[in-house]
Amino acid sequence: MTTTEAGAAAPSEDGGTVVTDHDRGIHGYHKQKDEHLKRLRRIEGQIRGLQRMVDEDVYCIDILTQVSASTKALQSFALQLLEEHLRHCVADAALKGGTEIDAKVEEATKAIGRLLRT
Amino acid sequence: MTTTEAGAAAPSEDGGTVVTDHDRGIHGYHKQKDEHLKRLRRIEGQIRGLQRMVDEDVYCIDILTQVSASTKALQSFALQLLEEHLRHCVADAALKGGTEIDAKVEEATKAIGRLLRT
Amino acid sequence: MTTTEAGAAAPSEDGGTVVTDHDRGIHGYHKQKDEHLKRLRRIEGQIRGLQRMVDEDVYCIDILTQVSASTKALQSFALQLLEEHLRHCVADAALKGGTEIDAKVEEATKAIGRLLRT
Amino acid sequence: MTTTEAGAAAPSEDGGTVVTDHDRGIHGYHKQKDEHLKRLRRIEGQIRGLQRMVDEDVYCIDILTQVSASTKALQSFALQLLEEHLRHCVADAALKGGTEIDAKVEEATKAIGRLLRT
Repeated sequence: MTTTEAGAAAPSEDGGTVVTDHDRGIHGYHKQKDEHLKRLRRIEGQIRGLQRMVDEDVYCIDILTQVSASTKALQSFALQLLEEHLRHCVADAALKGGTEIDAKVEEATKAIGRLLRT
Repeated sequence: MTTTEAGAAAPSEDGGTVVTDHDRGIHGYHKQKDEHLKRLRRIEGQIRGLQRMVDEDVYCIDILTQVSASTKALQSFALQLLEEHLRHCVADAALKGGTEIDAKVEEATKAIGRLLRT
Repeated sequence: MTTTEAGAAAPSEDGGTVVTDHDRGIHGYHKQKDEHLKRLRRIEGQIRGLQRMVDEDVYCIDILTQVSASTKALQSFALQLLEEHLRHCVADAALKGGTEIDAKVEEATKAIGRLLRT
Repeated sequence: MTTTEAGAAAPSEDGGTVVTDHDRGIHGYHKQKDEHLKRLRRIEGQIRGLQRMVDEDVYCIDILTQVSASTKALQSFALQLLEEHLRHCVADAALKGGTEIDAKVEEATKAIGRLLRT
């Protein structure tokens, strides 16, 4: 159960192949990185589409429909990120024991609160 | 009505009863039960206030302001419930090991998604 | 372009009482009053159901599902109220001419903003 | 860049000085076009910032905070668009008389409902 040099985001610089809990978090994140970037590029395309619509004087209601779609895509991206965060960072904090789990859960709850209030 | 020295997480007043992880979850829930019920009774009062406003032909915009306040109170209640759920059920699943953590995280994420979409 | 006997919500075709724009607004509101009160009583029932769930230690996720349903019902009530408001108060302000329409639209937009942010 | 034959919303570039209600709507829209485009370009920048954050493995919670900011910016853009729409299109429909106001209000309410549900 030695979490030596667990430091924030510090994976074995020197060479070791020891995979810590924290590394597991990073790996889980990496696995989905491409999917995240693809989603975000699609949202970027939607925002550029909105600029084109405004520029071409498209009917307001049709622009609003596109805004709703972009907002939904952003919320859906946030939800996936949150799921990974709970699975990796929050679960890891629980395994480590101590009070870190409380801090992590409070932090995640605040982030969810910010998403709800937008 | 004596809540004598209820102290943070104080179970087993009498003595020997073994406190399992699951008990911990339940106790955590219990501790906040009164606060939850108080919040919900306040929201129920707000909804009855809305009925009075409609009945007395109060100006629409003022009714809408009160609806926003009630919705915010409901979301705030949900957020607190979610925080306890993450702290107890999700963290416990992580400690148990196995695949239960995945199921719990997926379930919590879906619940957050439903809150976001309302 | 005589809009006398404007139909829709115009009562007193025969008798002497002058029907002002404001009356028209109020009458439109009255027509739906029963439906509004019925909706709000149903939401009040949902909130009481939530209290029962908390009291009986129902599983957090199931409570959260019920919170989502209540929030959706509240938003749906707000949306119907808003539709009537736009149809009556905002449209009436447009007919009156002058700057009242600007004030009414700004007020309605702020109310929508408050609903979005909850 | 010739937008001749733009159909739908093309007012007399060359001759007539007759300003119809519909023109008024278009003019109001044009006035804010630059501001809309500026807002949307800022949001596009935020989305590209999110891609950079994911690419550089920034901590999930910080990415979620940025998602909340982008969503808020999109909702705020939608709200401004909606305000102009109510001021021009909906108010114009009221002035025209007839049943167009009902159709316009229903359409606007549905758009608001889509924004609320994202």
